[in-house]
Amino acid sequence: MTLPKTDTLQLNQDGPVLHVTLNRPDSRNAMSLTMVNELMAVFEAIKDDTDVRAIVLRGAGGHFCAGGDIKDMAGARQQAARGDSDAFQKLNRRFGEMITAANQQPQVVITVLEGAVLGGGFGLACISDVAIAHNGATFGLPETGLGVIPAQIAPFVVERIGLTQARRLALTGIRFQGEEARRLGIVHEVAADADGLDALLEDTLKAVRKCAPHANRVTKALVLDVDHEPMEALLDQAAKDFAAAVSSEEGQEGTMAFVQKRSASWNQ
Amino acid sequence: MTLPKTDTLQLNQDGPVLHVTLNRPDSRNAMSLTMVNELMAVFEAIKDDTDVRAIVLRGAGGHFCAGGDIKDMAGARQQAARGDSDAFQKLNRRFGEMITAANQQPQVVITVLEGAVLGGGFGLACISDVAIAHNGATFGLPETGLGVIPAQIAPFVVERIGLTQARRLALTGIRFQGEEARRLGIVHEVAADADGLDALLEDTLKAVRKCAPHANRVTKALVLDVDHEPMEALLDQAAKDFAAAVSSEEGQEGTMAFVQKRSASWNQ
Amino acid sequence: MTLPKTDTLQLNQDGPVLHVTLNRPDSRNAMSLTMVNELMAVFEAIKDDTDVRAIVLRGAGGHFCAGGDIKDMAGARQQAARGDSDAFQKLNRRFGEMITAANQQPQVVITVLEGAVLGGGFGLACISDVAIAHNGATFGLPETGLGVIPAQIAPFVVERIGLTQARRLALTGIRFQGEEARRLGIVHEVAADADGLDALLEDTLKAVRKCAPHANRVTKALVLDVDHEPMEALLDQAAKDFAAAVSSEEGQEGTMAFVQKRSASWNQ
Repeated sequence: MTLPKTDTLQLNQDGPVLHVTLNRPDSRNAMSLTMVNELMAVFEAIKDDTDVRAIVLRGAGGHFCAGGDIKDMAGARQQAARGDSDAFQKLNRRFGEMITAANQQPQVVITVLEGAVLGGGFGLACISDVAIAHNGATFGLPETGLGVIPAQIAPFVVERIGLTQARRLALTGIRFQGEEARRLGIVHEVAADADGLDALLEDTLKAVRKCAPHANRVTKALVLDVDHEPMEALLDQAAKDFAAAVSSEEGQEGTMAFVQKRSASWNQ
Repeated sequence: MTLPKTDTLQLNQDGPVLHVTLNRPDSRNAMSLTMVNELMAVFEAIKDDTDVRAIVLRGAGGHFCAGGDIKDMAGARQQAARGDSDAFQKLNRRFGEMITAANQQPQVVITVLEGAVLGGGFGLACISDVAIAHNGATFGLPETGLGVIPAQIAPFVVERIGLTQARRLALTGIRFQGEEARRLGIVHEVAADADGLDALLEDTLKAVRKCAPHANRVTKALVLDVDHEPMEALLDQAAKDFAAAVSSEEGQEGTMAFVQKRSASWNQ
Repeated sequence: MTLPKTDTLQLNQDGPVLHVTLNRPDSRNAMSLTMVNELMAVFEAIKDDTDVRAIVLRGAGGHFCAGGDIKDMAGARQQAARGDSDAFQKLNRRFGEMITAANQQPQVVITVLEGAVLGGGFGLACISDVAIAHNGATFGLPETGLGVIPAQIAPFVVERIGLTQARRLALTGIRFQGEEARRLGIVHEVAADADGLDALLEDTLKAVRKCAPHANRVTKALVLDVDHEPMEALLDQAAKDFAAAVSSEEGQEGTMAFVQKRSASWNQ
């Protein structure tokens, strides 16, 4: 695997874990088009690499991501003025393509949420398999307060926490913090301070390492298919996948390790 | 905009907010066919009026709504006896048409829930964008305990809180109060007393006033479409709506107000 | 109604309630193929029996169910070695058929959860109309830690608690207990000890007895259809079912009992 060169992201591989840090701290890691494209390039590069089993997404400088980038918006405005009437639409849609890809990424995606988790940052948090937040993190959808709409974000908020909670957040723009984000189901766990946050991340990575890499990939694809495929067809396919998993190297090693009361080979 | 004359509803417009009070306190605001029809007429009358940005639904006399109206049921029984075998069916279906319309109403719909929130009242609470409850309010689906079914209500309860919680409530008829309603996701906020309830409503209306009227309409339509339209098509359309919003008067005013650190023109 | 003979289940009918106890305590009630087939036979036998209004599922010996049966897996492995390559697939799919049937069973299905509620046991808990847990019960999806996948289980976990929580549980294998299971929406109520658990069950059965048997059947079918049928068609059909319920013996008895302030005839 070769990771792409990135300007807006810090990449750091630690065994089976790829740490991806949004790295534009001066703008609270505002999601520029460059950042969107670099995230997609990273996701694409590691997609089929079974040695990478988890991706940790966080932000540099105490914030996760404060939303879209004002300079990009200004750029699109100029393009629009020059006659490229689709400039805003393309910019917006590209962000949606990125979180769609992130949602379906075969690895376990973990977000570590601090400071601003707003707009596009909120959307990105909503596709993670495990979301861990600092209690002081601030969540919200400020879009309609600015006269625009959370176009590529709100649908993922609905998928994350259901229509009932999403409609209120999108139509009032209210802000809230970690514990409330956990109560609403946006994040899974909350820490009171930075050390606690690190400990939660460590525990999560330890748990992921215990899970067989290929089995986890197949399982993630399965849970993402629920509600998109007819249930019977899904269960038929899952039974085939189960049979394949049992007969695979992983399935045999897993059974053996269990009987021998030892860690499985992938638990490293 | 001309509001319809109503016998069972009190209407009171306060700037961008229309207050609609169910006003049959002697029957704990039981949902008569007249009330259903009057609610639909009000919704229809203000549907395209962008000056009305929020609708507050509450009940007179300390109760929200205790369910269907016994006199209407008796009337339908007489009609049925006279040969109109569809009388019950029409009466029931009409209520479902009303909450379907209420659910899709372009304005922000806020319910203020006190006292009895039962049967049809429960159903009506389940379609609001923001639901605020007095902690002493009583929620429940008493239908099967009376030998009938929550026909036009249960589906909206499933949409509100999911199958897992809805199946228990519908099949046991248990009653519960404000805090539990919040835990289950039926309501968003709970107050300990009448003053607290008023304060929550005021805060909500303040938040809604900060949101651009047209942007909120487009956003509400978007979140309601999730799960009903294919995700990719939804995001494509949303990108177009985003581009339109940015270029609109609201989008320009919103950006300008943000840069100038002042309230946007719609925040009144 | 004639109940089938069962080796792995204890059956005990108490008026309108059928108690079904998973009875393989030596293996923490591991879900063998025989047990799966016997459960299906019981469900089938009582399906159309309106005298049975509730099914209580629990485990003997302090555990609900620890998951799949190791001997069955060994048997399938031998069959596979002898050339029946579908052995694992069939074994797995059969379990899914059983929880699909259990989910759609017309009676109110109540699970009482103690000790191990793992893998297949977790899946079975996820289809109950009312789930009551001992606070010390242990929940989890250990499959990918063993190199296999929660094939017939994870989809029901998604239906139970949504994608957001299910993806984390399936991809980390973490274990958790009663209160957390309640917070996640897997179970409805939690008791601190055995007496508390019995009290919750008694209260639930008392509530179910108050609900009209046929009305409850129709209501259960209705809530299960939400998200699987178009909403308008569902509400049209529900209005017909409502009219039929009102005119039925139950509907008339229910109204009469309400007016006469007495228990309805079915409340026994």
